[in-house]
Amino acid sequence: MLYLIGLGLGDVDDITVKGLKIVQSCDRVFLEAYTSLLISSGVESLEAEYGKTIELADRELVESSANTILDPAVDSNVAFLVVGDPLGATTHTDIILRAIERGITYEVIHNASIMNSIASTGLQLYNFGETVSVCFWEENWKPTSFVDKIINNVKRGLHVLCLLDIKVKEISWEHMAKGRKVYEPPRYMSVNIAIQQILESMKEQDEDERKVLNKDTLCIGVARLGSKEQTLKAGTLGTISSEVFGEPLHSLCIVGNLHELEADMLRHFAVNKDEIPVL
Amino acid sequence: MLYLIGLGLGDVDDITVKGLKIVQSCDRVFLEAYTSLLISSGVESLEAEYGKTIELADRELVESSANTILDPAVDSNVAFLVVGDPLGATTHTDIILRAIERGITYEVIHNASIMNSIASTGLQLYNFGETVSVCFWEENWKPTSFVDKIINNVKRGLHVLCLLDIKVKEISWEHMAKGRKVYEPPRYMSVNIAIQQILESMKEQDEDERKVLNKDTLCIGVARLGSKEQTLKAGTLGTISSEVFGEPLHSLCIVGNLHELEADMLRHFAVNKDEIPVL
Repeated sequence: MLYLIGLGLGDVDDITVKGLKIVQSCDRVFLEAYTSLLISSGVESLEAEYGKTIELADRELVESSANTILDPAVDSNVAFLVVGDPLGATTHTDIILRAIERGITYEVIHNASIMNSIASTGLQLYNFGETVSVCFWEENWKPTSFVDKIINNVKRGLHVLCLLDIKVKEISWEHMAKGRKVYEPPRYMSVNIAIQQILESMKEQDEDERKVLNKDTLCIGVARLGSKEQTLKAGTLGTISSEVFGEPLHSLCIVGNLHELEADMLRHFAVNKDEIPVL
Repeated sequence: MLYLIGLGLGDVDDITVKGLKIVQSCDRVFLEAYTSLLISSGVESLEAEYGKTIELADRELVESSANTILDPAVDSNVAFLVVGDPLGATTHTDIILRAIERGITYEVIHNASIMNSIASTGLQLYNFGETVSVCFWEENWKPTSFVDKIINNVKRGLHVLCLLDIKVKEISWEHMAKGRKVYEPPRYMSVNIAIQQILESMKEQDEDERKVLNKDTLCIGVARLGSKEQTLKAGTLGTISSEVFGEPLHSLCIVGNLHELEADMLRHFAVNKDEIPVL
């Protein structure tokens, strides 16, 4: 049996009671370690809380050698822990499909993810269009397709959740060329870099699009959502671009049409309250 | 202090460890009882698990007399329990704003909600457009605006989560006219009724729109998501319209452009596997 268990966003206590009981009853416990980081809790504190040894599952293990996780699930209970929800920002459909193919039963223990906790901004989930990923630009690779999606949503009055890039266990081209498995230090995109890339991308857009998305567009920068150190700052892209958000993880919401209660909530997070319209 | 605590979707064990600790330390515990129902757990089992008396907060209490909840939060700890996530399908921004106005600090303890757990269908959250609410048609009131939103999303290749109407503590026009506070039995919209209303609405749409959304459009009907009795059935609207889903709560996803892994997952839930394309 394979259990995919969401850990929620904050710390060791954000697992559900059901999830905790299952982890404690499992023979092997893996932690998905490559797309997210547990904000306040290290692996040691999880091990102490669960009374279990935790095996770290990096991208390579999950994507290439999923059998390390699936083999023991054939005749014993295996927990696969994922920060947030197991099917949230990073979907683990792939490992579920492999489990099904091998006749291994599975159960998903859901939890909060960035995809619903973003409602803490005061923006209502009903008013969000599709979620957008913003990836780090490289020197010779600066994709701007994400701004088309943002513009499309904002034109329709919808808010946009932008998930910001995470680079963990990346190998530089230089090392790769030399066949060296040397990992770069992890990188997490900040709200500031995301806004910079968005505004830079807008330079290539038409006038009409630039009316919809520009430095005066409202947004809310989000850091460490769901943890005690959660930080929310609302204002124009221009204002928020120079705010300090501190440690990762960061996310960014671009604001579409505001409803009254949404505006009232945003005002509480505003760097400059005058920037939030009174509706 | 006011704590808004998500209970998750399934049963009494779906609360987070953090949420449980807080409930147990609170002086008063209210349960939001009007927009959702806890699938497997009655109030008594929650009271037994928490060792606390739970006060039911119906729509009237939360919307008109929020002070019943807020007054004790001025100088003691109050838990306001919400099925799913406190800011998910039903947003409780209103009570938060009133708390802020009164200088009462608050904290949100997030949990899984239908808005992210819907990923259990295999459809990826990234590929969803805005969420749509489908309300019960009355004899002389048959709003069809929800299909415009569905069509708009499906045209863009996006999936659509349809939240289905819940009528709890409704008073009929007849009783209301006579000033009688007599509540109708609760009603929960089924997948079948939702599909019937969608297909009926399409009769008034243009040919182009009817090409996008019709009885051959793929969907997945969802019942009791997140509980042990969870039921998922995929197929065309025509096929799913006559399937039996049993007890509430039901939801419905209209499928946009399918990606390979999504199709592979849908096939596992298909009433007739031939209806799901092989990608």
